[in-house]
Amino acid sequence: MAKKITPRSKDYSRWYTDVIQRAEMADYAPVKGCMVIRPYGYALWENIKEGLDRRFKATGHVNAYFPLFIPQSFIQKEAEHVAGFSPELAVVTHGGGKKLEEPLIVRPTSETVIGHMYSQWVRSYRDLPLLINQWANVVRWEKRPRLFLRTTEFLWQEGHTAHATAEEAEEETLLMLEVYRDFAETDAAIPVITGRKSESEKFAGAVASYAIEAMMGNRWALQAGTSHFLGQNFARAFDIKYLDRNNELQYCWTTSWGVSTRMVGAVVMVHGDDQGLILPPKLAPIQLIIIPIWTGEEEKEQVWKAVADIKAALGEKVRYKVDDREEYSPGWKFNEWEMRGVPLRLEIGPRDVAEGRVTLARREGGEKLTAPLAPQSWGEGGEQEGLAQRLHDLLDDIQQSLFQRAKSFLDENSFEVDDYEEFKRIIERDGGFVYAYWCGSGKCEAAIKEDTKATIRCIPFHQKERAGRCILCGKEAGEQAVFARAY
Amino acid sequence: MAKKITPRSKDYSRWYTDVIQRAEMADYAPVKGCMVIRPYGYALWENIKEGLDRRFKATGHVNAYFPLFIPQSFIQKEAEHVAGFSPELAVVTHGGGKKLEEPLIVRPTSETVIGHMYSQWVRSYRDLPLLINQWANVVRWEKRPRLFLRTTEFLWQEGHTAHATAEEAEEETLLMLEVYRDFAETDAAIPVITGRKSESEKFAGAVASYAIEAMMGNRWALQAGTSHFLGQNFARAFDIKYLDRNNELQYCWTTSWGVSTRMVGAVVMVHGDDQGLILPPKLAPIQLIIIPIWTGEEEKEQVWKAVADIKAALGEKVRYKVDDREEYSPGWKFNEWEMRGVPLRLEIGPRDVAEGRVTLARREGGEKLTAPLAPQSWGEGGEQEGLAQRLHDLLDDIQQSLFQRAKSFLDENSFEVDDYEEFKRIIERDGGFVYAYWCGSGKCEAAIKEDTKATIRCIPFHQKERAGRCILCGKEAGEQAVFARAY
Repeated sequence: MAKKITPRSKDYSRWYTDVIQRAEMADYAPVKGCMVIRPYGYALWENIKEGLDRRFKATGHVNAYFPLFIPQSFIQKEAEHVAGFSPELAVVTHGGGKKLEEPLIVRPTSETVIGHMYSQWVRSYRDLPLLINQWANVVRWEKRPRLFLRTTEFLWQEGHTAHATAEEAEEETLLMLEVYRDFAETDAAIPVITGRKSESEKFAGAVASYAIEAMMGNRWALQAGTSHFLGQNFARAFDIKYLDRNNELQYCWTTSWGVSTRMVGAVVMVHGDDQGLILPPKLAPIQLIIIPIWTGEEEKEQVWKAVADIKAALGEKVRYKVDDREEYSPGWKFNEWEMRGVPLRLEIGPRDVAEGRVTLARREGGEKLTAPLAPQSWGEGGEQEGLAQRLHDLLDDIQQSLFQRAKSFLDENSFEVDDYEEFKRIIERDGGFVYAYWCGSGKCEAAIKEDTKATIRCIPFHQKERAGRCILCGKEAGEQAVFARAY
Repeated sequence: MAKKITPRSKDYSRWYTDVIQRAEMADYAPVKGCMVIRPYGYALWENIKEGLDRRFKATGHVNAYFPLFIPQSFIQKEAEHVAGFSPELAVVTHGGGKKLEEPLIVRPTSETVIGHMYSQWVRSYRDLPLLINQWANVVRWEKRPRLFLRTTEFLWQEGHTAHATAEEAEEETLLMLEVYRDFAETDAAIPVITGRKSESEKFAGAVASYAIEAMMGNRWALQAGTSHFLGQNFARAFDIKYLDRNNELQYCWTTSWGVSTRMVGAVVMVHGDDQGLILPPKLAPIQLIIIPIWTGEEEKEQVWKAVADIKAALGEKVRYKVDDREEYSPGWKFNEWEMRGVPLRLEIGPRDVAEGRVTLARREGGEKLTAPLAPQSWGEGGEQEGLAQRLHDLLDDIQQSLFQRAKSFLDENSFEVDDYEEFKRIIERDGGFVYAYWCGSGKCEAAIKEDTKATIRCIPFHQKERAGRCILCGKEAGEQAVFARAY
């Protein structure tokens, strides 16, 4: 008998791990801190990739592949970069049976090696902008790993662009943040807030970092995507120069931006419940699970005939699977596919066939519906269009409903606070996102973190028109920041 | 001015590198032996991936992701495996600022770590077969690297399956070889011979290895895909066991199979000519390059109007690009896109517009054609279907023609030989594939290699019905082998 899923209220962390392992999304690798992404988890990641890749290409980006190994000296060329990444590096010292003259770093991110290549590819303003993305694995040594959220090796995409002007590069940085927001909200049904990172939270080597921040089911924050304006920092370190229209050499302005397999963890934590996963239809590897129910050969034949009609009607318009295993009961199958988060279930038994209908059950909410089985009743489009369209509409509705539910949860657990005692009470009692004025000093930020374990998730783009006073020191403050405990 | 491409007849190796660099498919990375796959080369690889991935899924396989790092002790568990791979390993000795207790190997291939995971996932015959593929980077230290053909890091897919019986595993091994043959011949337009590897050429740890072998433009062989029957070797080393129907514990039978970025090199070398790349339409990132030609504003307006009509007619049915750069002449563009191997060119100038036609030029063969420009002349389907269909048919014809040309080249340069002097003469003069009877001894194989640098590419499946005598020792031999110099 499979292990039960720990209820969220009892131990959120164990609930998360239970869901992932029970749904066979991932497993622990033999090397500490690393994970294996199992087929069901990988299929979800493939859909995430597809949704992002489509958006990258639509905004003019192309894919390429840069090497896994980076000379140690490269990492050391940008001062903040080396300081930020040094503690997390994996180092190759031997290759082909020999000690290497210069150790190689397994890429933790690729600004350095890509900067080196860009310096060779960019000659004139005609070569700009350079808009390249790569899908790759990266390694950052992780002391306290969690499946999908923090693993020593993870999969991601990293976009790296070079531009002629600061304005263009800043525009690109914000465009890609918007691409991430759109993906998270539209495809993953995860509402996010967008904003700028504080100095202490920004990418090592960036001038400014921006992020999308989502609220997990336990009211913690998760940074689900980041976009960095790198100014000329890497261009100077790697000598990325171009001849401008006046034939003068200028340093480029660069950006980088990334989303990783963390997004899978976000999908689990935003939508899941005590029964297990709930997957948004746009990303679900299986959108519809069809469960035929019968006893005896005669019923089987009737039901199977109806299933064949349904399959013909669906074609490739819906990602479905028929669970025809005979060794499991329908009840067991219902639980199994609920646990795996399939958005919609279609049941069809002899009574359904007799009454000319199918039974549908929504994973989110659990609502049961029926739909006519006879092809001629499937509306306008006849047998081909009717059922597929009906299911499509239902899946769209489920997608919307998941987003709305998550949005309400985010709104209900977001608080605007002027008083530090209340701030602490909220963070310590239930958690959530706390909007509070902040003077901008790292000292106040650090003291609040020390007190409450809450960090500044971002300085959100949407700000009030009035100024206020810093939640800690009381000094005049032009902007609010969002504070939360975070993964 | 861009560097000229060295003619093939002058220096084949330099021709190959020139083509790849001029077409911006790849570049040398700062770490010796590694490469950067540039956007144009990566787009070709994406199409290769898509063609293979579709076939894997259609044959019941799913994707997953296993870790980059493998404990050193794992590599040592299968005796032949460690002997084969030891000289090529990259070793991580430090992580997170500390020396590791056990060094980690950067995966050269993943039989070991996947075997370890399978031993935990497989319990009973109901869990079998396990049919998993991964797309990943691997590292094998390379002393004499060549872009795409031999690089220290390369991209590939590796399929790993576990089965209840030897027969099923052998069937899988041959099925995947057939998938590779079909992909190579249908999508890459590369004719291949299929067969078994000799003992000395088989995968380290396999019971039997099979390969598809292609002939490059210089008559050398390239192993373009391999499929291995691993027997119970890895199942025993990693304890992959299942309970059979009689409730008895049995070791699984496993397979593995892979195709890598080498395939890109094969496409370059099979189809390319002294002008540069020639890409098969099914894999070409750009299938059709549209070059508008005009002088002055009035002509420009006319021509651009016609281009807009053409774009509307093509929609997403053809992968096209319009080269509208004003800083380059039409002649320069013709050369540029020929060098980049775009299968079909569409020219449209004021005279074409006046005469209601477009000019088409095939990259392979160079033939020029015209097609009517007026939408109403585009045949049955009217303006939407007509032109797209016409180009589609042309692209299909080009695909076929490339395959036929490569097939003729393969046939013309394949020789059946009974006499060792002739064998040596052929290999040393022009090269090619030499079919000769072989007694099966490693001694004869090694002596022939020593004499001629030709290796046994495979023992082809298609054999004559009669026996013969070994080309070297003259002993009775049941089968012919294919000998060639190889990459």
